[in-house]
Amino acid sequence: MAMDGYRGFLGLLVSALLVGFLSVIFVLVWVLHYRGGLAWDGSLLEFNWHPVLVVTGFVFIQGIAIIVYRLPWTWKCSKLLMKSIHAGLNTVAAILAIISLVAAFDFHNNLQIRNMYSLHSWVGLIVVILYFLQLVLGFFVFLLPLAPPSLRAFLMPIHVYSGLFIFGTVIATVLTGVTEKLIFSLSTYSTLPPEGVFTNTLGLLVLVFGALIFWIVTRPQWKRPQETNSILQPNRSNPEGVEGSMAINFGNVDKSDSDLNNEAAARKRNITVDEAGQRSTM
Amino acid sequence: MAMDGYRGFLGLLVSALLVGFLSVIFVLVWVLHYRGGLAWDGSLLEFNWHPVLVVTGFVFIQGIAIIVYRLPWTWKCSKLLMKSIHAGLNTVAAILAIISLVAAFDFHNNLQIRNMYSLHSWVGLIVVILYFLQLVLGFFVFLLPLAPPSLRAFLMPIHVYSGLFIFGTVIATVLTGVTEKLIFSLSTYSTLPPEGVFTNTLGLLVLVFGALIFWIVTRPQWKRPQETNSILQPNRSNPEGVEGSMAINFGNVDKSDSDLNNEAAARKRNITVDEAGQRSTM
Repeated sequence: MAMDGYRGFLGLLVSALLVGFLSVIFVLVWVLHYRGGLAWDGSLLEFNWHPVLVVTGFVFIQGIAIIVYRLPWTWKCSKLLMKSIHAGLNTVAAILAIISLVAAFDFHNNLQIRNMYSLHSWVGLIVVILYFLQLVLGFFVFLLPLAPPSLRAFLMPIHVYSGLFIFGTVIATVLTGVTEKLIFSLSTYSTLPPEGVFTNTLGLLVLVFGALIFWIVTRPQWKRPQETNSILQPNRSNPEGVEGSMAINFGNVDKSDSDLNNEAAARKRNITVDEAGQRSTM
Repeated sequence: MAMDGYRGFLGLLVSALLVGFLSVIFVLVWVLHYRGGLAWDGSLLEFNWHPVLVVTGFVFIQGIAIIVYRLPWTWKCSKLLMKSIHAGLNTVAAILAIISLVAAFDFHNNLQIRNMYSLHSWVGLIVVILYFLQLVLGFFVFLLPLAPPSLRAFLMPIHVYSGLFIFGTVIATVLTGVTEKLIFSLSTYSTLPPEGVFTNTLGLLVLVFGALIFWIVTRPQWKRPQETNSILQPNRSNPEGVEGSMAINFGNVDKSDSDLNNEAAARKRNITVDEAGQRSTM
């Protein structure tokens, strides 16, 4: 990666981390300062785990899992290691998402509030189910060395698209959740008291975090170089390379940056090809 | 475009049109059957124009505007014509979005309901402002023959990213709007009466429409062939080609399809190069 591209990447990454951390801090301040705190007792304090775990796991950790292949200092790590980190972060996010659902249902059941009537609950449950399907599919197809390369190549664009669709839908669902909760719990919402301003801002932070993750993951010049032997065999398709690619191009890139990056990527590939004999093909 | 890819594209396009039409029909049935109808009298019936115009203009027409370059039968049309259609559809959507805001504010002011306190209103207003900035930027940079090619090349990835971010955020905002409106107006929402099921389904339809548009616009094999002279001058950057590209790759594509498509694209480019003398460089 050229120095210009690297600095741009670092700036965006630091921004995403800052906005992500800020979102987690905002959701904690919201429930601890404005909503009475956290507990696991079937009360409103148990419900408060729901937004905390969603923002921490389903938004922040999932967002990091999405861009983990793009960290330039990991490009020397094996693909298997990076896949394991990607899968591990998504597994942690999935577990936190499940606990967050338990907190919401538990609270509802305890206070005899009906479940699953709102659009928030419908979209939220659908996206959690999709996330688990995505996780299981990713585990068996891309992490375990079972699937034939042609299947991996076929499913990779679907995996990438689904992952980004799920992430975007999670963010949309967070916005509906904030909307619901403030209307239900903040009787003075329409006068825009401090809690209203603060929690609306939480919603904006989550949206900006999503925007930064989407920008980072869709810059072609910031993707992990493909582990392919295409330099040696330019006419052969290499499904491992395809699988390794998070290639997403929105429009084309600035030429000079792109050319510099191609050079860097080419150098990288040569190293990779040199190393190939000593490495797992995973 | 290979026959396989063409049929896949047509299937997705027809699905998107169907789901889009269905969304418009659902929002009309919602306001006409469940919410008392439409009027422009400062009452709740005036507010009803808000969801109708948003779903029709800001969701459906904007979605079509996004994929208009991808219709294979338009690839023989000039780029200027397609840009004008893209800009025209987005202008119509922007006008409908503005009228939808007027309906909401008018209703609020008339009934002395406060404006701009909810997360829905914050995100909604931000995204309308961004949409207008995007429209003005697109008009002066890409439609008028004023901007230097280097500026167009620099701004194109930002234009494409912003457009998709805005579209996704509009869909998220629709989900918060449905959530708000049902909680405010449907006192029996938690018992999930027919209106609740129906309007939640409207929310899901809008989400599925967004998913289909995102899939169509991110398939590299379905993008409009670049109007570039890169075949004749492979080492020269061509900003007009860059500008013309809606190139978005999520992962790589199925090889056979991609190869066939590359052939088709190459043939297309040759035709374009042949025609270049008789065409505007716009």
